[in-house]
Amino acid sequence: MRVLETVEGPADLKKLTDQQLTDLATEIRDVLVETVTRTGGHLGPNLGMVEITLAMHRVFDSPRDRLLFDIGHQAYVHKLVTGRAKEFGTLRQQGGLSGYPSQAESEHDVIENCHASTALSYADGLAKAYRVRGEDRHVVAVIGDGALTGGMAWEALNNIAAAKDLNLVIIVNDNGRSYSPTVGGLATHLTSLRTNPRYEKVLDLIKKNLGRTPYVGPPMYEVLHGVKKGLKDMLAPQGMFEDLGLKYVGPVDGHDRHALEDALRSAKAFGGPVIVHAVTKKGFGYAAAEQDEEDNLHQIRPVNKPRGWTDVFSDELVKIGHRRPDVVAITAAMLHPTGLAPFAEEFPDRIFDVGIAEQHAVTSAAGLALGGLHPVVGLYSTFLNRAFDQLLLDVALHKCGVTFVLDRAGVTGDDGPTHNGIYDMSLANLVPGLRLAAPRDGKRVQELLNEAIEIDDGPTALRYAKGEVFPDIEAIDRVGQIDVLHRSGKDVLLVGIGSMAATAMDVAQRLDAHGFGVTVVDPRWVKPVDPQLVELAKDFELVATIEDNGRAGGCGTTIAQALRDAGVETPFRDFGVPQEFLEHAKRAAVLQAIGLTGQEVAREITEQLTQRVAALSEPDTAGDRPGT
Amino acid sequence: MRVLETVEGPADLKKLTDQQLTDLATEIRDVLVETVTRTGGHLGPNLGMVEITLAMHRVFDSPRDRLLFDIGHQAYVHKLVTGRAKEFGTLRQQGGLSGYPSQAESEHDVIENCHASTALSYADGLAKAYRVRGEDRHVVAVIGDGALTGGMAWEALNNIAAAKDLNLVIIVNDNGRSYSPTVGGLATHLTSLRTNPRYEKVLDLIKKNLGRTPYVGPPMYEVLHGVKKGLKDMLAPQGMFEDLGLKYVGPVDGHDRHALEDALRSAKAFGGPVIVHAVTKKGFGYAAAEQDEEDNLHQIRPVNKPRGWTDVFSDELVKIGHRRPDVVAITAAMLHPTGLAPFAEEFPDRIFDVGIAEQHAVTSAAGLALGGLHPVVGLYSTFLNRAFDQLLLDVALHKCGVTFVLDRAGVTGDDGPTHNGIYDMSLANLVPGLRLAAPRDGKRVQELLNEAIEIDDGPTALRYAKGEVFPDIEAIDRVGQIDVLHRSGKDVLLVGIGSMAATAMDVAQRLDAHGFGVTVVDPRWVKPVDPQLVELAKDFELVATIEDNGRAGGCGTTIAQALRDAGVETPFRDFGVPQEFLEHAKRAAVLQAIGLTGQEVAREITEQLTQRVAALSEPDTAGDRPGT
Repeated sequence: MRVLETVEGPADLKKLTDQQLTDLATEIRDVLVETVTRTGGHLGPNLGMVEITLAMHRVFDSPRDRLLFDIGHQAYVHKLVTGRAKEFGTLRQQGGLSGYPSQAESEHDVIENCHASTALSYADGLAKAYRVRGEDRHVVAVIGDGALTGGMAWEALNNIAAAKDLNLVIIVNDNGRSYSPTVGGLATHLTSLRTNPRYEKVLDLIKKNLGRTPYVGPPMYEVLHGVKKGLKDMLAPQGMFEDLGLKYVGPVDGHDRHALEDALRSAKAFGGPVIVHAVTKKGFGYAAAEQDEEDNLHQIRPVNKPRGWTDVFSDELVKIGHRRPDVVAITAAMLHPTGLAPFAEEFPDRIFDVGIAEQHAVTSAAGLALGGLHPVVGLYSTFLNRAFDQLLLDVALHKCGVTFVLDRAGVTGDDGPTHNGIYDMSLANLVPGLRLAAPRDGKRVQELLNEAIEIDDGPTALRYAKGEVFPDIEAIDRVGQIDVLHRSGKDVLLVGIGSMAATAMDVAQRLDAHGFGVTVVDPRWVKPVDPQLVELAKDFELVATIEDNGRAGGCGTTIAQALRDAGVETPFRDFGVPQEFLEHAKRAAVLQAIGLTGQEVAREITEQLTQRVAALSEPDTAGDRPGT
Repeated sequence: MRVLETVEGPADLKKLTDQQLTDLATEIRDVLVETVTRTGGHLGPNLGMVEITLAMHRVFDSPRDRLLFDIGHQAYVHKLVTGRAKEFGTLRQQGGLSGYPSQAESEHDVIENCHASTALSYADGLAKAYRVRGEDRHVVAVIGDGALTGGMAWEALNNIAAAKDLNLVIIVNDNGRSYSPTVGGLATHLTSLRTNPRYEKVLDLIKKNLGRTPYVGPPMYEVLHGVKKGLKDMLAPQGMFEDLGLKYVGPVDGHDRHALEDALRSAKAFGGPVIVHAVTKKGFGYAAAEQDEEDNLHQIRPVNKPRGWTDVFSDELVKIGHRRPDVVAITAAMLHPTGLAPFAEEFPDRIFDVGIAEQHAVTSAAGLALGGLHPVVGLYSTFLNRAFDQLLLDVALHKCGVTFVLDRAGVTGDDGPTHNGIYDMSLANLVPGLRLAAPRDGKRVQELLNEAIEIDDGPTALRYAKGEVFPDIEAIDRVGQIDVLHRSGKDVLLVGIGSMAATAMDVAQRLDAHGFGVTVVDPRWVKPVDPQLVELAKDFELVATIEDNGRAGGCGTTIAQALRDAGVETPFRDFGVPQEFLEHAKRAAVLQAIGLTGQEVAREITEQLTQRVAALSEPDTAGDRPGT
């Protein structure tokens, strides 16, 4: 019987022998490799988290103590040892285990968010709540070195440092390359802490003198701490965490269970916030992942990769880069996934990867624009949420010519509710002067990117979907900026936005088959609303917009508003994503579930048109109401 | 003739004698006190910036070199010495000088933003742009110690530290209390740098040995730097800026022009990013401001203070605090202006001021809620922009019972375009599960705050205006959650949102006088849209919403959407703030300019109703269109 099968919860971990724990670690790695290569998901980060997770659960007492994982995709091991080993094969499948912690799955899961750099703030709040309530519980947060580059984490550290009496342990899981090599001064500092040979020598010395376990409780902690302080002039540079007033323990080998447990026990006993600096190796124990320099095994996708939206952008930007020496690119720890790597290779002086720091990415882009360049900021749509204020005030108010390229926009599906890019168009709609384009296919990505780059008096944004790029749909006509894609009559004007233009074409086919006359347009630029679109709308019985953005504040609402403002009273329907958190599933399944398919949209439009025709043929029952 | 009158630009400063510069500093302080006590504006910060600004302009060459001021309200002195002394009396008046830098006013102004912590990111981008373009220009950014508590500033520092060759000088204007005493570990660290007597002794020694000016150029800089490094073990704690790899010069006396100029000259010559740590005294040279412990002179308001929206909230929260021991409060360096100070005094263990760190404020509130408390987060509406992602994913996705109280919502007027709170309702409309209330008067602030505090299964938000609270408008009826305020007929349903309920009443009076039948309602809770409001709308000829939020994605759009979804085709108008950056002026003048007054709304509605009546009495000209 495998050890993993005997572990139904954290309590079981505490009973295991040292050998059993070693075996368990091996079994867990096997399960991770076997499952994730099949289901897709995050492999490297979890292979690096095996020993840390076991140590956390053995030293602390979840769920009484709260264990938080910054970016939940490093919580697979936690799932395996908190009663979910049997279902682990359903990871990220519809109806199966989430790829992130989930309150619905387990009382051991606290935060479900998979945006980085949040855990320390949660931890600060939780620990303060327990202090206010007089409860003696510990809060333990694991955060990667990459996530520490995010401003939120700094805000939290700054506050935690000032709260001397919180029962709060921060484990820095430092593999030196959270997504890719971590950038910035902090990374350099961590490296110096990690690699200083004199430091190691001191620790070795201490270990030898004091026995195998250097940290055995608060007095010993103090002794060691004192020793370390006394040896300070040997240890350059001094730790910035201690400058902030945070107790620092480390570095410890993040794959040495004993060292980890000792460090966590002393941190637990300390009675105030402590940082435990654990050095790990991403992919540890799986040679292919350990040696994966390009970080391809950070996240595994089970399928072959066809040409994606990202690839089209990637190639086009390199072309533009050759033509336009003033074009530079910025990303926030998403160099490869946003397709900026080829640009970086071609123009190494014109690429800026700022770390997990969207706010800085956006405002430094404003600076680059003020300095006479045209920056292209490549982000996942969902991470634009992190920099709304910067987009609004730092870029748009200053009329900076910055082009935002929002990848993974719309329903992304199996990455769960926090990775859907369903807010970007609503946010963009709020920003004065911003021009927003939603390309419907690869050719339009090229075309609209080139148009956007030419605009230098304010921000532009392109947003496109995740995954395989859609087949090109050629226009049969152009009205203003608007592409006409289909024209069989004037019953319904279908406005297909971005990737939903394909859905609109599907709807049109179905409505054609029912004998309705349909025109399908793709506005290409969805903000500002093209006055020609308003003109066009006057001629139809019904206008329907289809977008895979949230309905609240989406393009449907701005087009409806433009019609109202122009006194156009054509009945209007706006199809989009309902404003709710979507369960993880494949994109197609999610679209089906929320009714954003050709079939469902066609059904609803047919119903509405049929009702209207019926109403017209009956006597007017509305009586005293004008306009009906 | 005063020296100030001879200064038409930075070049003139460079010609002045030492005595003239001393006189100029005095004259500038006189002008600041005289003007700002009359016009309103930021006094303390600018009194503290006199010598720093003079030194910046003497050492650097603006506009070729770019001088950036983090939070533009510390740029008054800069305005005075860049050709705007004559117009300075028009500060913050309609058509007069902005209270912040303004590109339209001067080529010496770069960033207009008055949200904190942005300047270092701009500076990083600008300096990188000059590097890419091969231009030898310097970028100098002044940032307060308070603004360094913001995560954006950390993101920027982390990146700047990694860019060894940027011509970038950061001046930390450290007065220890940007808005109020600066919080957190960083503040402690700055204090230790500032006050370490051994450090001072070392500097004194060096000064004595090397003459009056410790920094005279790059070799000397290096010497000093070496000396300091060598003396490291005397200097505890070591500077975290250097841990990050940033060159650090300081502390220097921020009111000693010579020391400042020397430090800036050496920093300029260094050829890489340098931090100059200047210690200043807020309000320096004006006894009343220097001794202003409560920081009342941070910003001067020229009028007597009548009872405000904030005061009503403030008093009510203290009452709630007595009744509900689980209610805690969070603010982000806005303790006094958001009215949380009395709560803090009454319940010192239940208040958390996190510094200029909205992201942390919001996510730590989620942590507090997960820990069993009910946090109230007090922010200016405009600063919610900084924490949208945290509100969405950290609070709402986790169904945390957190109450957001958004002060200064709507058009705030003379603080300029970046302080208007005209995005909050649009952002709130995007957040699943969030319930949003807009109180129309003081009594509703009390009522809705109490209702919000009772909701523990998701976020709630209240938003109210700046300034004097409106007189109570009593309801004549209640339908569902909706207050009916006026009822004279069924021609128009006016939905007055928050402070615009008063405007709706004004509109109603005017329409009544024209013989129209008007009903005015205040939904109180504007999100989710009350189904009863949709029902009600069926009975009218026209529905009009009035809000002082941006029209894009505002409550007008969500109510219109709810009507469409229910098949209600009553004609609809949404009055709100146009989606553009508003010029600074008094609130009433801004509302007038954008047509958000009783008179203008009544005029437009009258016109629309008259047209409809006319259209009804004519034969149907629309022919083949149903629904017209």
